[in-house]
Amino acid sequence: MVKVSSIFIIWLTVLNMPLTYIKTENTITAHINSVVEEHNDIERIEPSNWWVGFKNSELQLLVKHPNIINAFPEIDYAGVSIKKVHKTDSENYLFIDLYIDKTAKAGKLNIVFKFENGVKKIQTYELKSRKKPAEDYIGFDSSDVIYLITPDRFSNGDSSNDINQNLLEKTIDRTNNYARHGGDIRGMINHLDYIESMGFTAIWPCPLLTNNMPSGSYHGYAMTDFYEIDSRFGTLGDYLELAHQTKDKGIKLIMDQVANHCGLEHWWMKDLPFKNWVNYQENYEENKDSWNNQATITTNHRRTSNQDIYSSKKDKEEMSNGWFVSGMPDLNQRNPFMAKYLIQNSIWWIETAGLSGIRQDTYPYSDKEFMSQWAGAIMEQYPNFSIVGEEWSYNPLIIGYWQNGANNRDGYKSNLKSPMDFAMQGQIVNGLNEYESWDTGLIKMYEGLANDFHYASPKDIMIFPDNHDMSRIFTQLKEDVVNTKITLGYMLALPRIPQIYYGTEILMNDSVNPGDHGLIRTDFPGGWEGDTVNAFTGKSLNDEQKDMQGFVKQLLNYRKNSKAIHSGKTIHFAPFMGTYLLFRIIEGETVAVIINKNDSPITIDLKRYDEIGLKGKNLKNIITNETFVWKGEMVLNSKGITILTTKF
Amino acid sequence: MVKVSSIFIIWLTVLNMPLTYIKTENTITAHINSVVEEHNDIERIEPSNWWVGFKNSELQLLVKHPNIINAFPEIDYAGVSIKKVHKTDSENYLFIDLYIDKTAKAGKLNIVFKFENGVKKIQTYELKSRKKPAEDYIGFDSSDVIYLITPDRFSNGDSSNDINQNLLEKTIDRTNNYARHGGDIRGMINHLDYIESMGFTAIWPCPLLTNNMPSGSYHGYAMTDFYEIDSRFGTLGDYLELAHQTKDKGIKLIMDQVANHCGLEHWWMKDLPFKNWVNYQENYEENKDSWNNQATITTNHRRTSNQDIYSSKKDKEEMSNGWFVSGMPDLNQRNPFMAKYLIQNSIWWIETAGLSGIRQDTYPYSDKEFMSQWAGAIMEQYPNFSIVGEEWSYNPLIIGYWQNGANNRDGYKSNLKSPMDFAMQGQIVNGLNEYESWDTGLIKMYEGLANDFHYASPKDIMIFPDNHDMSRIFTQLKEDVVNTKITLGYMLALPRIPQIYYGTEILMNDSVNPGDHGLIRTDFPGGWEGDTVNAFTGKSLNDEQKDMQGFVKQLLNYRKNSKAIHSGKTIHFAPFMGTYLLFRIIEGETVAVIINKNDSPITIDLKRYDEIGLKGKNLKNIITNETFVWKGEMVLNSKGITILTTKF
Repeated sequence: MVKVSSIFIIWLTVLNMPLTYIKTENTITAHINSVVEEHNDIERIEPSNWWVGFKNSELQLLVKHPNIINAFPEIDYAGVSIKKVHKTDSENYLFIDLYIDKTAKAGKLNIVFKFENGVKKIQTYELKSRKKPAEDYIGFDSSDVIYLITPDRFSNGDSSNDINQNLLEKTIDRTNNYARHGGDIRGMINHLDYIESMGFTAIWPCPLLTNNMPSGSYHGYAMTDFYEIDSRFGTLGDYLELAHQTKDKGIKLIMDQVANHCGLEHWWMKDLPFKNWVNYQENYEENKDSWNNQATITTNHRRTSNQDIYSSKKDKEEMSNGWFVSGMPDLNQRNPFMAKYLIQNSIWWIETAGLSGIRQDTYPYSDKEFMSQWAGAIMEQYPNFSIVGEEWSYNPLIIGYWQNGANNRDGYKSNLKSPMDFAMQGQIVNGLNEYESWDTGLIKMYEGLANDFHYASPKDIMIFPDNHDMSRIFTQLKEDVVNTKITLGYMLALPRIPQIYYGTEILMNDSVNPGDHGLIRTDFPGGWEGDTVNAFTGKSLNDEQKDMQGFVKQLLNYRKNSKAIHSGKTIHFAPFMGTYLLFRIIEGETVAVIINKNDSPITIDLKRYDEIGLKGKNLKNIITNETFVWKGEMVLNSKGITILTTKF
Repeated sequence: MVKVSSIFIIWLTVLNMPLTYIKTENTITAHINSVVEEHNDIERIEPSNWWVGFKNSELQLLVKHPNIINAFPEIDYAGVSIKKVHKTDSENYLFIDLYIDKTAKAGKLNIVFKFENGVKKIQTYELKSRKKPAEDYIGFDSSDVIYLITPDRFSNGDSSNDINQNLLEKTIDRTNNYARHGGDIRGMINHLDYIESMGFTAIWPCPLLTNNMPSGSYHGYAMTDFYEIDSRFGTLGDYLELAHQTKDKGIKLIMDQVANHCGLEHWWMKDLPFKNWVNYQENYEENKDSWNNQATITTNHRRTSNQDIYSSKKDKEEMSNGWFVSGMPDLNQRNPFMAKYLIQNSIWWIETAGLSGIRQDTYPYSDKEFMSQWAGAIMEQYPNFSIVGEEWSYNPLIIGYWQNGANNRDGYKSNLKSPMDFAMQGQIVNGLNEYESWDTGLIKMYEGLANDFHYASPKDIMIFPDNHDMSRIFTQLKEDVVNTKITLGYMLALPRIPQIYYGTEILMNDSVNPGDHGLIRTDFPGGWEGDTVNAFTGKSLNDEQKDMQGFVKQLLNYRKNSKAIHSGKTIHFAPFMGTYLLFRIIEGETVAVIINKNDSPITIDLKRYDEIGLKGKNLKNIITNETFVWKGEMVLNSKGITILTTKF
C-alpha cells in the first residue's frame, strides 16, 4: 500500500512539485514487465479490463470463483499493487483493491491466486492505454437533438442473431407486442444515414446489455450482466462499430444504464456476494422458491420522499429499497462494493465505447447519496461528459432539485447535468389539448416555461414530446397533426436538449390502446425485410406522414446550425388572442416562433414585439422558405406554428 | 440641513462615540420649546402626525394647499430641521424632508409657510411619544389562528353611521349583495367575546379606510384616503377601541393595506402632485372625462413576469403598471415620494393602532423592488412584526419566491415573512373532491405538503380554506360536511399560520351561485338586530352548523396551547388504502391526525407508524374527548378526521 506522509505532501506543495513524480518502493519496482503468458483460470473477474492513466488510481476487482475466499491473490507488475483484499459473505467471491500508479504502463498482468492447499489459479488481466484525453469525451448539450430508439423495434439488421437458444426467452414474434421482434445494433448501424439526414445529432438506444429473462426481455431494463451486450442485439464488436460509425458522422452515442436494479436472472442472484448486496435480500432468500409479486417488497413509488422534510423513515426506506417489480432486484448502493461496482461499470463503458453520454434509468429510486457520488465520479473523470437522469415528475421543484447547481436547502448536490422535463412536456400537451381561456391553453406553455427561473441551468434539461414509457405524442394530442407540429416546433426552439422518440417523425401512435407499452414501441416501418411500408425510403407512407417527416427534417437541419437556438437569449410574450410568440436571439440571428391556435384568420399587430428589434427586417420561414418583412401587421391564416429566422 | 462630514464620522468611530451625541447648530438649538399656539391654515398635511424616537430620523411630509409651491417653510423646534423642500409638478403640493434628531422631544411645532408676497400660513404639527418599544409589536405566527372578517357583512353595531350623505354611495341595502349592509367596527367590538371563545387569536378585518366610491364601496379595497377610517365603519376612535379591546383579550389585530392602487375617487386624483404619481397617468389625464373600462390600460395579470427570466419588457411593464380595474388607479411606487408616502402610511398605522400585523393586498402587482423596500423598512423598525402578502398562485415556486429567506437566483430578497398558500389550499380541495387512486385523492395533500422542502420557512406561510375572494370552502367541497371537517382539521394541524374566513364555522356558502363575490360575503347571522338566526348565540342554527361550530371551537381551543402544532416536528406517511396520517411532535406532546376517506370501516395496522413512538401510549380525541391506547390495530368506522393527542 502506498502511503505518503502528510509532511511529505506539504513539503511537495511548497516546492510546487506534482505528486505524480513521487516514487516509492511499493509502486515503482525495478522489474521490467515481460510478455505475460495468458491464463484464464478464474470464472469471472469484473471489470474485465481496465486502463492506465486515470486520475483515480484505485480499482476494485470483483472476483468470482468457487471457494476463492480461501485464496491469496498476488500481482507482480510495475506500478500495480494490491492494497487490500476483501472477503465476502459468500465463499465464492473476493474483492481486490488495486493501486495503479500514474507510472504504470499498459499491458497484461497475471493475478496469481494461491490457495492454502498449494493450488494456484492464474488470471490474466489487461490494463489498456486510454484512447483519448478525458476532456475529449464531449457530452450532448442544447446544440443536439437526440433520437431515442427501442433497438428491438427499430430495425432487424442481422436476422442470424434473433434467437439464442442459451437464453431463457427463445422466441421471436413480431405479432406479439411484448415479445422480441429482432431489432438489433446492426439495424441501427444500417440506418445511421437516415438518422443523420433527418438532422439528429445523437442517439440514445434503450439498453443493449444482456437481459436473460424468460419474457419481456426486449425492453432491456432487466439486465442480467452489466458487462455484456445481449447477443440478440449483437456483439460488443457491433456496439463498438456503432460507436465508431456514429462518431464518424458526428452523431453522439448515449448509453442507457441502470444503477437501481438488475434482472432477477442476473448471474449473481444465484450466489450473492454479501448479505446486503440487494435490498430486502433476506426476504428474497426466504421466499425465492415461490418468488412472485406477493413475495416481493416493492417500492412505494412515493418519490417525493427523497426531498420531503416531513417524510417518515418508513416511506423513505420503502421508496428507495423496495424492488421496482418482482423481476428486478433492487441493488443496495449503500454497500460500498456495489457502489464501486456500478461506478466502475459506467466508466468501463464510457472508456470502451467512447461514449458521449449516459441516460440513467429510474434515477430517484436509487440511493440518492450514491447517485451523487456516481455522477460526481464520472464528471470528475470526464469534465465535458453529459448524464441525463430519469425522474418522472411534473413538479418543477423536483426537477430542479436533481440538477447540479440547485440551491437545495438540504445541501444536496446531485452532480447531474440533465434532469428530464416532464413538467414542461405536460404543460405543452395540456395547453394544446385545452381550449383557450384566461388560464387554459397556451398560457400553460407560457407559465410552464416561466418556471425556468428556478432551474440552475434550463438549457441542460432534456425536453421530449414522449418517450418509450409514454403514450406517443400523436396519441396524446388526439391525433391532431397541427398540434403535433406545434409541439415539435416549440420544443425544438426552447432552451433545452430535445429528445425525439423514433417514429415520431412519421406520426407513430398507440391510439388503439393508449399507453400500451408494447404498442408504444411499435416496429419502425422499413426496419424489417419485406416491410410493405418503409419510412427510411418514404415508400407507402401516407401524405400526413411524409409531410411530418419533411417538417421534422427541415426543422432539425435548421436547428443543427442555429446558434440562437443552441445558446441564444429567450424572450416570450404572454399569449394573446390565441397566439403566443417566443424569440431566440443571438448576435446575427433571431428566430421567431409564432404559435396560433385560431382556426379562422387572425391579424396580429407587430408593434407589441418592437423590443425584439425585428422591425423592417427580412425573415425566412424555415419550413416553407418563404420570406417576409417584419412590419405593421401579420396575418395568421390558420392554426399552426410558423418559425422564422433572420439568418438565411 | 444637517450634514456630518465623513472625516468627522471616522473620528467618532475611532472614539467609539455614538452619533446621537453629536450636536450641531442646526438640530440642537438653544431654544426652549414654548407652548405652541395651534394653527390649522393648511389644507392637508400627511402623515397627520409623527413620533420621536424612531431609528429612522427622516420624515417626509406631503403638504397640499393652493399655490403652496411658492411658499418657503420654516420650523423652529429643538432637534427638528428641514433638510430639503421638494417642488412638485402641481403648484399645490410641497414635499418637505424633515430631520428628527434622536434628542428631539415629543410636542407640537409650527411649520410656517412664508410666501413671497409676505403672506404667512402656519400649520401645527405634532410629534408624539412612542407608546411602547418597537420590539413589543409582536406579529402573528404559527401559534395563531386568524379570523378574516368582511366588516360590512359581519355585524352592524352602530346603525347611526350606516349612511353618510357626504359620501358618494349614499344607500344601505341588505337585499343587494353588492351594496353596503351596515356592518362596522362597533359590530366587531361587540363580538370579540365570540371570536375569543371560538379560539381565534387574531383578526384580520378587510380594509376599513374611506372608500368614497359611487358603488361597491363595501369591500374596502378602493381607498380614497389612506389616513382616514371610513365613517360608515366608524371613527378612528372606534378603530383604536377595537385595537385596545383585542389587545386586552390577547387577540392580535391585523390591518389590511393596499400599496398597489387607490380608488379612482381618491382626493389626489383631482390634482396629482407629479406627472408620474400613478401609472399610465398621461392616458388617464387625456381620457378622464370619458373614463371607462375601455380607456383604462389594465394590468395583464401575468404575474409570472415578476419571476420569468424570459419575460418581455412589454409584459413586465403591463403587469406591474396596468391598473387593476378602471376604478383603481395604479400607484407608481417608482416615484420616490410615493414610495415614502406608502411606507410612512404603514408605519403611521402600526404606531397609531399598535398593530400586530399587516395583510398587504395584490402583492405582486406593485413594483417588486418597492415591496421589498416597504417590507424591509417596516421589519427593520419592528423586528417582531408580521406581514402577509397576497399572491394568488397555485405554484409553490412563486409562493416560495416571495418569502424572505428564499434562495432566489435573481437575488431578490422580499423581506416578506408570510406569503399565502393557495397551492396547498388547492391540493387539499382537489384531493378531497377526487376519488382515491394512485395519483388522485389524499396523495395530492401528501405531495402538496412535501413541497415544503422548498420554502424558507413553511410555518410562516398562511393557509386558509378560503377567503373573501374565493368560493366558500363548503361550496368548494360540494357541501360535504365531513370533507369540510377534514380540511379544517388538517389545515389547523399543519406547520402554517391558519386563517379562517368568518362564517366558515357555520358552513356559510355560495352554492347557489358559486364564486359570486357578494354572496361569498354574506351577512353573518345574528350580526343585525332582528336577525332570526344568530350564530353568536346559536339560535336557529341547524344541527350541521352547530356541530361544525363546536368542532371548530374545540379544535381552535386545543390548538391555542398546542406547542406540538405551533412549532413541533412534522412527520407524515404516504396515503395508504384511503387513509393518511400526519403527526406533530414536540417534547411532551404528540398530535396524531388520521384522515380516512373510506365510507366503509377499515382497519389500519399501527405497526407502520412505530417510528413515532406512540406504542402503548394513551391518547385523547380532542373533539370527542374519548381516550384510546395506541396498540395493534385501529378501526376507522367512517370517513372523517380523527385528531388525537398524548397531552391531556
